[in-house]
Amino acid sequence: MGIQYIFELIGTFFFAISGALALKDKEPDWFAATFTGFLTAIGGGTLRDVLLDSYPLVWVSDASFLYAILFGVVTTFLFHRVVSGLKKTILLFDSLGISFFTILGVEKAINLGFSPEVAAIMGMFSGVMGGVIRDTLTNEIPIIFRREIYATACLLGAGCYLILNPYISRPWNMAISIALIVTIRVIAVYKGLSLPKLK
Amino acid sequence: MGIQYIFELIGTFFFAISGALALKDKEPDWFAATFTGFLTAIGGGTLRDVLLDSYPLVWVSDASFLYAILFGVVTTFLFHRVVSGLKKTILLFDSLGISFFTILGVEKAINLGFSPEVAAIMGMFSGVMGGVIRDTLTNEIPIIFRREIYATACLLGAGCYLILNPYISRPWNMAISIALIVTIRVIAVYKGLSLPKLK
Amino acid sequence: MGIQYIFELIGTFFFAISGALALKDKEPDWFAATFTGFLTAIGGGTLRDVLLDSYPLVWVSDASFLYAILFGVVTTFLFHRVVSGLKKTILLFDSLGISFFTILGVEKAINLGFSPEVAAIMGMFSGVMGGVIRDTLTNEIPIIFRREIYATACLLGAGCYLILNPYISRPWNMAISIALIVTIRVIAVYKGLSLPKLK
Repeated sequence: MGIQYIFELIGTFFFAISGALALKDKEPDWFAATFTGFLTAIGGGTLRDVLLDSYPLVWVSDASFLYAILFGVVTTFLFHRVVSGLKKTILLFDSLGISFFTILGVEKAINLGFSPEVAAIMGMFSGVMGGVIRDTLTNEIPIIFRREIYATACLLGAGCYLILNPYISRPWNMAISIALIVTIRVIAVYKGLSLPKLK
Repeated sequence: MGIQYIFELIGTFFFAISGALALKDKEPDWFAATFTGFLTAIGGGTLRDVLLDSYPLVWVSDASFLYAILFGVVTTFLFHRVVSGLKKTILLFDSLGISFFTILGVEKAINLGFSPEVAAIMGMFSGVMGGVIRDTLTNEIPIIFRREIYATACLLGAGCYLILNPYISRPWNMAISIALIVTIRVIAVYKGLSLPKLK
Repeated sequence: MGIQYIFELIGTFFFAISGALALKDKEPDWFAATFTGFLTAIGGGTLRDVLLDSYPLVWVSDASFLYAILFGVVTTFLFHRVVSGLKKTILLFDSLGISFFTILGVEKAINLGFSPEVAAIMGMFSGVMGGVIRDTLTNEIPIIFRREIYATACLLGAGCYLILNPYISRPWNMAISIALIVTIRVIAVYKGLSLPKLK
């Protein structure tokens, strides 16, 4: 639990950075950048927990997550030029963020007794819906509708975790499933891979 | 209950088709079309149940609804040209979908002990909010703000059901209220009827 | 409680007017104007209560709030030219609305046993998220991302209330915190004050 908790805080921190940077072409003020960092970091998990009726929400019961977000946003402000130039770094952190949150979301749904189908959807929601909510509020087409393979990578990683779950230990399963999501995502960006289009 | 359950699955199936088709001018990939089908089918009922604190959500506790959505999306993919050409058929199915979901939403709220005012709003939400969520995420002006009489038809049908409820049997009341919504909606489209505008 | 209840109804009434007017450049029909009035009035408190798992929602358990909204919308229809010309009046009522709802939201979260950090966020949500939801659904950039100091005023007022809370009586604290929010907001609009921008 100790290590998982630290990973969750680190994931929240990186999600807040990617959220705070999301608006940069619109020259957001401090509040707007903080708010989009906050939405990106807590949106997916909050939607999952509301849909599963799992209360209290993590960030409501433990203010550490709010401080991790604040720390991420302040880091973005202080090192704005450095951070926003690191496109490859951001891709990597965003991929780590969505993959880690996806697998933690799958585990939470399974532990609460929900079916594998629901767990896979909730895992994907945990990973990507923070960004979707952020994009919707800022009047952008959400990333899942426009970019290279994204939510699909989360669903594949969730499926991998659920299939391997009875056979291998949790740490190995997490490592394999997270690596799968990150690999698919990074390859998709570098090769420009998209899913087939309808028509 | 047997027949109602089958109707709910059929309604979900048709809503998923209309959702999967909603993006077609934007050339969605498989994931995007599936996701919009999913949102359209479950959005309204999910919002209603979250607002009424009625858990577990239907599609979370019964994976049949997820498979009905998947079946609808696959049908759209396989018969894309055929399905998207059937404009009148789509109008009819969409009207049947919103009217059926509206009345089921009204009944659910009444059975949970809520007031008629709340039941009417929850019925309308069940019918139209899936499409509203879909349109919002895909950066469209939601249908309820732009088209011919739509949500108002659901509110009128809900009111009809609530007024007749003490006097006639449930199957007759459902049939009359659903027919009222479908009729208003179809006439509105064919005659181009809109509500009066504010100034 | 008597006076607070009346204030809540009055706040709801004014929020419904500002919501119904929000679409006026788009020539909304009756339903659209009513619906945006409704969303503006109930959106923030509803989001707060869903996140805090505080059920039943106020407007679900007490239809008076729905009638206050309806009364606000009808007032807007009947006195449309008069009301929409009163720009200064609208600014004042909107400022009173967001400040009152912010402080009531802070108090609710504190009374439910949540931390000051969460109470401040929930207060701000109560004040501004109705408008954010309305703007998002109608495809506008939400007010909190584009206007002069807005949500930040709510956060400052919430902080003021939480800091003074142990030292002064509730009516004085409410009056001071609400006055602070209204003052910041009105000065920001008249002086065109914005927060510093990122970059």
